[in-house]
Amino acid sequence: MITKSFLCVQMIVNFPVLGWMRVSGNGGNHLKNVGGVLMAWLVFSTLAGAGSMVVALLLFERILRKDPGTGRMLEIYSAIKEGALAYLRRQNRTLAVFVLVMAIILGVVATVLRNATIGLSMAIAYVLGSACTTLAAYLGMRAAVETNVRVASAARKGLKEAFPVAYYGGAVMGLFVVGISLFGITVLFFVFRELLGWADVDATDVVLSFSFGASALALFAKAGGGIYTKTADISADLVGKVELGIPEDDPRNPAVIADNVGDNVGDVAGMGADLTDSYIASVAATMVIGAEIGNPKLVTLPLLIAAMGLFASIIALAFVARSIRRSPGRALNLGTFLTCGIFVVLLLIAVRFSGLEGNSWLGVFLPTLAGLGAGVVIGLTSDYFTSIEKKPARRIAEASVTGTAINILMGFSYGMVSITPPILCIAATTIAAWYLAKAFGIDPFYGIASAALGMLSIVGTVISADAYGPISDNAKGIAEQASLGEEVVAVTDMLDAAGNTSKAITKGFAIGSAALTVLALFAAYAHLVNIKSLELMSPQVIAGLFIGVMMPPVLSAMLILAVSRNSERMIEEIRRQFREIPGLAEGTAKPDYAKCVDIATAGALRELLPSGIVAIVAPALTLIVLGKEALAGFLAGSILSGIIFALFMANAGGAWDNAKKYIEEGHFGGKGSEAHKAAVVGDTVGDPFKDTAGPSLNTMITVMSLVAEVFAPLLLLIFSR
Amino acid sequence: MITKSFLCVQMIVNFPVLGWMRVSGNGGNHLKNVGGVLMAWLVFSTLAGAGSMVVALLLFERILRKDPGTGRMLEIYSAIKEGALAYLRRQNRTLAVFVLVMAIILGVVATVLRNATIGLSMAIAYVLGSACTTLAAYLGMRAAVETNVRVASAARKGLKEAFPVAYYGGAVMGLFVVGISLFGITVLFFVFRELLGWADVDATDVVLSFSFGASALALFAKAGGGIYTKTADISADLVGKVELGIPEDDPRNPAVIADNVGDNVGDVAGMGADLTDSYIASVAATMVIGAEIGNPKLVTLPLLIAAMGLFASIIALAFVARSIRRSPGRALNLGTFLTCGIFVVLLLIAVRFSGLEGNSWLGVFLPTLAGLGAGVVIGLTSDYFTSIEKKPARRIAEASVTGTAINILMGFSYGMVSITPPILCIAATTIAAWYLAKAFGIDPFYGIASAALGMLSIVGTVISADAYGPISDNAKGIAEQASLGEEVVAVTDMLDAAGNTSKAITKGFAIGSAALTVLALFAAYAHLVNIKSLELMSPQVIAGLFIGVMMPPVLSAMLILAVSRNSERMIEEIRRQFREIPGLAEGTAKPDYAKCVDIATAGALRELLPSGIVAIVAPALTLIVLGKEALAGFLAGSILSGIIFALFMANAGGAWDNAKKYIEEGHFGGKGSEAHKAAVVGDTVGDPFKDTAGPSLNTMITVMSLVAEVFAPLLLLIFSR
Repeated sequence: MITKSFLCVQMIVNFPVLGWMRVSGNGGNHLKNVGGVLMAWLVFSTLAGAGSMVVALLLFERILRKDPGTGRMLEIYSAIKEGALAYLRRQNRTLAVFVLVMAIILGVVATVLRNATIGLSMAIAYVLGSACTTLAAYLGMRAAVETNVRVASAARKGLKEAFPVAYYGGAVMGLFVVGISLFGITVLFFVFRELLGWADVDATDVVLSFSFGASALALFAKAGGGIYTKTADISADLVGKVELGIPEDDPRNPAVIADNVGDNVGDVAGMGADLTDSYIASVAATMVIGAEIGNPKLVTLPLLIAAMGLFASIIALAFVARSIRRSPGRALNLGTFLTCGIFVVLLLIAVRFSGLEGNSWLGVFLPTLAGLGAGVVIGLTSDYFTSIEKKPARRIAEASVTGTAINILMGFSYGMVSITPPILCIAATTIAAWYLAKAFGIDPFYGIASAALGMLSIVGTVISADAYGPISDNAKGIAEQASLGEEVVAVTDMLDAAGNTSKAITKGFAIGSAALTVLALFAAYAHLVNIKSLELMSPQVIAGLFIGVMMPPVLSAMLILAVSRNSERMIEEIRRQFREIPGLAEGTAKPDYAKCVDIATAGALRELLPSGIVAIVAPALTLIVLGKEALAGFLAGSILSGIIFALFMANAGGAWDNAKKYIEEGHFGGKGSEAHKAAVVGDTVGDPFKDTAGPSLNTMITVMSLVAEVFAPLLLLIFSR
Repeated sequence: MITKSFLCVQMIVNFPVLGWMRVSGNGGNHLKNVGGVLMAWLVFSTLAGAGSMVVALLLFERILRKDPGTGRMLEIYSAIKEGALAYLRRQNRTLAVFVLVMAIILGVVATVLRNATIGLSMAIAYVLGSACTTLAAYLGMRAAVETNVRVASAARKGLKEAFPVAYYGGAVMGLFVVGISLFGITVLFFVFRELLGWADVDATDVVLSFSFGASALALFAKAGGGIYTKTADISADLVGKVELGIPEDDPRNPAVIADNVGDNVGDVAGMGADLTDSYIASVAATMVIGAEIGNPKLVTLPLLIAAMGLFASIIALAFVARSIRRSPGRALNLGTFLTCGIFVVLLLIAVRFSGLEGNSWLGVFLPTLAGLGAGVVIGLTSDYFTSIEKKPARRIAEASVTGTAINILMGFSYGMVSITPPILCIAATTIAAWYLAKAFGIDPFYGIASAALGMLSIVGTVISADAYGPISDNAKGIAEQASLGEEVVAVTDMLDAAGNTSKAITKGFAIGSAALTVLALFAAYAHLVNIKSLELMSPQVIAGLFIGVMMPPVLSAMLILAVSRNSERMIEEIRRQFREIPGLAEGTAKPDYAKCVDIATAGALRELLPSGIVAIVAPALTLIVLGKEALAGFLAGSILSGIIFALFMANAGGAWDNAKKYIEEGHFGGKGSEAHKAAVVGDTVGDPFKDTAGPSLNTMITVMSLVAEVFAPLLLLIFSR
C-alpha cells in the first residue's frame, strides 16, 4: 500500500518527463530510468526559473501601471533614475572589461591544460554567469527606482495602498534574479550533460564557471555599490545634519540625490547580487560534490531543491501583500516563515520521492532542514542584537549620555558579543549536517552543502524583503523632499521601520548561509584538488590559516578606507557648493546634484579596485608560493574570520543605527541633545560597517573560494608537469 | 684542532658542574655524562635567575637612595602608593582564593587519576607559580611607585639625571620577574628530576603547573589592572578634559590619583605579569615537547637558552643608562638591539657546545634565531603603524578635520591593515622554524617552540623598557600636579615620548611571541593528548575552530564593556564631586581622591570575573561536549583570531593616541580645535583597545591553552575509563 502510494507521488514528481520525451522507449519501466528521472528534475527547475522570471515581469508591469505622483515627485524620480543608470552604466562598462579579461584567462588556461572545448565552454559559462546576474540586478534596480516614487504616491492613500507596492517592487528583484540564476544553471547543465553528453564532472565545472561569473558581478555590485551608497550617506549626514543642522533628505543638500541613488545601487542591486552569488555558489558547490562522489542523482538533486524553494517563495508572495492588516513588519516576517513552511513540505515531497535508495533521502532532507532552521535562528538572534526594542540598542543609547567614545565602545562591544549565537549555531549545524548525512549513507560534505542550500533555498523571499527596505527608505526620502506632508511621511516611516527589522533577519540569513556555502565550496575545493585529508599540524596549513584569517579584516579595512577617502572628497564638494552657490542655504537656489553623483560614481569604482585585486591575487599567490594545502588553510582561515567580521560589522552597525533612532524617539534628551550627537557619530561609524564592509565580506570570501576552485586545479596541472 | 677547541668551550659551558658535584666519580669521562652536562645547565640557569634577582634588588636599593623631592611631591607619591597598594591587596586577596580553589581542583583531579604524589606536586607547583610571579609583580610595582616621584625630582636637574632613574626603575620589574621565573622553574625541575629522580614527562608536568599558576596572576593583573587603569584614564579625561576643559593631570580632578595608580597597577604590574606569563609558558612548552620526544637534553636546553637571554639583558642594561646623550628613545632602542646582539652570541656558544649530536644543534639555533628576528620585524612594523612620524597616525589626524566619525573609521581601518606584516612574519617564521628544525633532525614542533623562546628570551629588556613608559608618564603627572615648572615638565615629556615609541616595539614583541608561544602550547597539547594528526576536514575540528575563533572577540568585548560600565560609575562620581564639593572647580577645595580609587578597584575585580570564568570554562566545556579534537580546533581558532584582534587593537589604539598628539603639536588647528576634539574621542576609544582588551588577549589565550593542557589529559582519563 504505502509503497504503491509512494510510487504514485514519484510519478507526479517525475511527471513532466512522461509528457515530454524518453517515454515511449521505456514503457512501464521508466521509473527506474535514472536519466528520465533526472530529466524530469531538470525540466522542473527550468520551469521554476522561467516561471519566477515571468512572475517578476508581471509584477513589474503591474507596478508601472500605478500612479507615479505629481510634478516635484517626478522631478526627484528622474534625478534618481538618471544617477542610478549613470552609475550602473559605468559599473557595467568596467565590469565588462574585467569579465572579458577574466574569461580569456580562464579559457586560455583551461584550453592549454585540458582542451579547447572545455576552455571555451568555461569561458562562455563565465560570461553568461555575469551577464545573467547583471541583467537581473539591472532590472531589479530599475524596478526599485520605479517603485520608490509610486510607494510615496500610494502612501498618500494610506498604508494599505502603499505596502503592496513596496513589497512587489522588492519582489521583482527577488524573483527575477533568483529565477534567472536557476534557469541559467539548469540550462547550462542540461546542454552540457544531456545534449552534449559530457561527464558530470566536466558539466559541473562549467556550472562552477557560471557561479564564478556571477561572483564577478557581486564583487562590483556589492563592494562598489556599498562604497557608493555610504560615501553619499555619510557625506550628506556629516555636512547636512551635523554641520549645517538641516534635516535628512533636505533638497538643499547637494548630496541628497546621490544618497537616494545609493540606496538603489548599493542596497537593492548590491545586496541582491550578493545573495544571488551565495545562492548560485551553494547550488554549484553541492553539484560539484555530487559529481565528485559520482552519483548522478546527487548532482541534479540540488536543482530540484532550489526549484522547490523558488516555488515556495512565489506561493508565499501571493499571501503576504494581502495579509497586511496593520503592521508591515508582521507581514514581512509572515512572508519569511510562510516560505519556510511551504518549502519544508515541498522539500519533503521532492527528496522523499527522489528515488534515492533506501533511507538515504533522509541524509539529504535532514541536513537541508537543519540549514534552514539555523538560518531562522541566526536571523532571530541578529534581530535581538540590533532591534530598537531590545537591550543592546537601548544600552548603547543610554551610554551616549556619557559621551561619544562610550557610545562607540558599547556598540563595538555588543557587535562582538552578538557573534556568539550565530557562531554556535553554525558550529552545531556543521556537526548536525555532517552526522545526519553520514548516518544515512550520504557523503558528509554533501550534507554540509545541503545545509547551505537549505538556508539559501528561500532566497527569493529573502531578497524581496531585503529590497523592500531601501525602496521604502527612498519613498520616505521622496515624500520629504516633495513635501507631501507629515501624514504621508508617517506612512512611509512605518514602511521603513518594518524594513529595518526584516533587514536584520535577512542579513543574518545572508551571513549564515555564506558561511555554510563557503564551507561547501571549501569541501568542493578539497575534492577538486584531491586533498583527502588536511593535516592542521603542518606548517603550510598553519601559515595558510594565518594568512587566510588575516584577509577579511584587511579587506574590510580597505573598503572602509575607500569610503572614508571618497567621503572626504564629497564633503569638500558639498561644503564648496554651500560656500559658492548664493542662496543655497536659504533654499532659493538649487544645488548641483550631478556633481555629487559623479564623485560617488567615479570614486566607488576606483576605490573598489585594490580590494578586488587583493581578493583575486591573494589566494592565487598562496597557492603558487605555499602549495595546495596552504590554500586550503587559507580558505578555512578566511571563512573563520570572515563570518566573525561580517556578523560583528552588520550587528554593530544595526545597533548603532537603532540606538540613534531610540534617542530620536525622545529618550535621553531626544533630537539635538548631546546624547543624540554622540549617537549620530556612532551611526555614521556603523554605516560602512553594516552596508559596505560587512556585507562585502560574503562576496569577497566567495570570490576567493571560487578563485581557488576554478584556478587551483588548472594551476596544479602546471606544477605537476 | 677544531674539535679540541670545541671541547674546551664545552668544558667552559659545562664548567660549574666540575666544581660542584659528580666530578670525582666520572673522571676524564665527565663530558660524555649527559647527567653531568644537564646538571651544569641547571646550575647555570639557577645562577642566571638568582643573579638577575640580585641585580634587580641592588637597583631598587640604588633608586631608594635618590632624592624623592619636596612636600607636595611626597604627598602625591603617598596617595599613589596608598591607592596602588590598596588595589594590589584586594587583587591578591581575590587571587589567593582563586588560586587555592584551582590548586585543590588540580590536586584532587590529578590525585584521583594518577597518584597522590603527582597531585600534590602539581598543586604545590601551581601555588608556587602564582606566588612567585605575584611577589615579583608586587616588587616591580613598588619599585615603579618609588621611582616615579624620584624621576620627577631628578628631572629638575635635567634629562641626563632623570633618564637612568626611570630606566633602572623599569629594570627592577624586568629583571626581578624574569629572574624569579627562571629560578622557580629550574629549581622545581631540579628537585623533581634530579633529586627525586622523576621521569622527564612527570617533571615537566609539574613545570607546566607552575606556568599555569603564573597565568592565574597574569589574568588578574593584566585584565583586572587593564580595566582599572582605563576606567580611571577615560573617566578623568571625559569629565576633566572634555566637559570641564581642565588640563590632564590637574589636581582638581578627583580621578587624577586613580589615573596615576592605574599606570602602576595596569601598565607596570599588568604588562610585566603578562609577558612573564608568555615567557614561562614558552619555556614550559618547549620543555614538555622535549620530554615527549624523549631527549633529556632537549628538555633542559630551554632553561640554558633562557639563562643566556637573561645574561644578555643584564649586560645590555649596564650600557644603556650610560649611553644616553640626547635622546632617551635612542637609548631604549639601543638596549633592545644590544640585548639581541649579545643574546645571539651567547646563544650560539651555548647551543653549539650543548653536545647535541652532529649538526642537530643547528635545528635549535636557527629556529631560535628566526623567532628573535621575527620579534624585531614585528616590533618595527608595529612602530610604523603607530608612530607619530609616520603616515597612518598623520592621516588619522588629518581625517579628524572631517569629523569624529571619520577619525574613528580611519583608526579602525589602519589598525586592521596593520596586522598584515606581523601575520605574514608569523606565518613565515612558522614555516622557517618547522623546516629548519626538521632539516637538522629536530622535531618540528620543538623548532616552533624554540622560535617562541627566541622571541621571548630577551624579555628582561622588553619588560624593563615597557615599565619605563608608565614610570615616566607618572613622573610627568607628578611634575605637573606638584607645579615643578615648565622646564621640568618638558624633561619628563621627553622621557614620556621615548616611552611611547619603545612601547610600540615591545608590544609587537609581546603579541608576536604570544602567538608563537601558544602555537607551542598547542603542539604540547597535541603531544599530551596523543593527537598525532589533526584532520581539519572533520566536523568536530571545524566546530571547534568556529568556537575558538569566536572567543577572542567576545572576550575583548566583555573587557571593553567592563571598562565602559566601570567608567560610567566613575564619571557619575566625578560629576557628583564637582557638583557637591564647593570650591572644587576653583581649586580652593580638595577632591575626594579615595572615592575614585575605590570605584576603580572594586569595579576592576568585579568586572573581570565573567571574562575570566569564560576563558576557563569554555575550553573545558568544548572538551567535554565535543572531544579532544574539537578542543585542538578550539585552541587553533583562538590563536588565529586572538593574534589578529590583539594586533589590531594595540595598533589602532596607538595610532589614535599619536594622531591626537600630532594635532596637539599644532597641526590641523592644534589643541582646542574641532579636529582635536574628534581626535580626543578617537584616543578614548583606543584606550581600552590598546591597554585593556588587546594585551589581555595574550593572557586569555595562554590561560585557555594551559587549561587545555593541564586539564585535558586528566579529563580524558575520566572519559576513557
